[in-house]
Amino acid sequence: MLIDGKNTAAQIKAEIAAEVATMVANGQKRPHLAAILVGHDGGSETYVAHKVKACEECGFTSTLLRYEDDVTEAELLQAIDRLNADNDVDGFIVQLPLPRHISEQRIIEAIDYRKDVDGFHPINVGRMSIGLPCFLSATPAGIMTLLERYDIPTRGARCVVLGRSNIVGKPVATLMMQKATPGNATVTVCHSATPDIKDICREADIIIAALGSPGFVTADLIKPGAVIIDVGTTRVPDATRKSGFRLRGDVDFDNVEPLCSWITPVPGGVGPMTIVSLMKNTLLAARHDIYPA
Amino acid sequence: MLIDGKNTAAQIKAEIAAEVATMVANGQKRPHLAAILVGHDGGSETYVAHKVKACEECGFTSTLLRYEDDVTEAELLQAIDRLNADNDVDGFIVQLPLPRHISEQRIIEAIDYRKDVDGFHPINVGRMSIGLPCFLSATPAGIMTLLERYDIPTRGARCVVLGRSNIVGKPVATLMMQKATPGNATVTVCHSATPDIKDICREADIIIAALGSPGFVTADLIKPGAVIIDVGTTRVPDATRKSGFRLRGDVDFDNVEPLCSWITPVPGGVGPMTIVSLMKNTLLAARHDIYPA
Repeated sequence: MLIDGKNTAAQIKAEIAAEVATMVANGQKRPHLAAILVGHDGGSETYVAHKVKACEECGFTSTLLRYEDDVTEAELLQAIDRLNADNDVDGFIVQLPLPRHISEQRIIEAIDYRKDVDGFHPINVGRMSIGLPCFLSATPAGIMTLLERYDIPTRGARCVVLGRSNIVGKPVATLMMQKATPGNATVTVCHSATPDIKDICREADIIIAALGSPGFVTADLIKPGAVIIDVGTTRVPDATRKSGFRLRGDVDFDNVEPLCSWITPVPGGVGPMTIVSLMKNTLLAARHDIYPA
Repeated sequence: MLIDGKNTAAQIKAEIAAEVATMVANGQKRPHLAAILVGHDGGSETYVAHKVKACEECGFTSTLLRYEDDVTEAELLQAIDRLNADNDVDGFIVQLPLPRHISEQRIIEAIDYRKDVDGFHPINVGRMSIGLPCFLSATPAGIMTLLERYDIPTRGARCVVLGRSNIVGKPVATLMMQKATPGNATVTVCHSATPDIKDICREADIIIAALGSPGFVTADLIKPGAVIIDVGTTRVPDATRKSGFRLRGDVDFDNVEPLCSWITPVPGGVGPMTIVSLMKNTLLAARHDIYPA
């Protein structure tokens, strides 16, 4: 059956909007998310546009700061300092990737971790790993929320994570093994150095595919009844689309879907949940739920 | 064959001592490790005594600050502030566990992460997870050093980690999956909610056992030729010993040893390496190799 991320995200945005309405009615300020966008990368433009739209739907204030590709690292660091100091801004993100002359790591570490609603700052990564309250990075958090809202059993399940990136593979593996619900799964992380990745997939009750390899997870890798979470979003050329491309996931959806119990589509699965997790973190930041004011 | 942690640790301490001698000959100050010990727990006393002795062997200055069991959290936090501010102290540890009226997490987070040579501060945990330079927590680092010094192949190996603690299971899993040597393994983390833990062990090329369950890893769980790293150190009563106890690992050593290619004994395996990793971190702190002065 389909795990409808778009619909779940819409529900959660409505829940957040209701909460914001109450906050505002009680005289509190609206949550405020700022985003820094550098350059004109098509993917980044789209993501940021979606985030701005999600802010509107949630009743948040949003600010978009745009810089050209030739912005210096020093200029960006100054912009970050200003956002760190701006009491009206509850949280902000710097849309990645950045031009090569700028150190993404330096930029991420310059963000006040109490406003790091992307959850990329080492303090938030470390706190997540230890199991302390923190801003969870958006994609892993979105996956956990889908599992929770669809009541998918994870305790004791064999969970195979494909990919070991800092923003998806490693954190979602940590969350899935944590003593929590959802969580408590037996997690195996596969990656480019895994020789028998297909055999390992065949034993999985849950596959979380985050390789960025379109159609990698084929029907012959699926244990019947498995749960498939597809994090892949590769743009592949498609002449029939106005944009000239479409998004393809890591899963061969058409052939896998009949075999599994639950599956996320691409698009409309994990993607919308990623954005909604960012909204949730912004709400948590505005309420000072994670870190005191 | 035996992975001789005691001997490897002795070698590394000699290497560190040689380096310290050069530093001192060049007019630099000796590295200085401080330790805070609360109460009179037998295990903690022993560990701290070993650490003080290791400091001597490495040519480090060491300071031991002792507090009684009824020390307040505020007093400990003040002691930590003084160590944070003390320019002669390069790194320090607070020996765990602490009395129940003190928040271990609050204590850990009060330590300046640039002096956190135990690697328990969220910043160091997060940086390790991301793959950035940091103080690696001592036991996982000791395990990686043993694998490195014994030239044990890990790339593409199936590595099963038993236990998901913050100080061993989770960080060693992260290090073993990292794109590095040693590392690049396909890691599965098993824990109390894993139903088929024995079957999973049977597929392992490398087992890292950190359950604290004496003799859990029996011969029938071993794939012939596997590498066995035993992190368990449970004190079991032993009337034949002066101390009244002996240390038992998580592995049924006598029956497992003939089947595997490499195995760490308990004691004399991971334990001495844990202490030597702390010494290495202290040296790195004194040289400001991880974080600038």
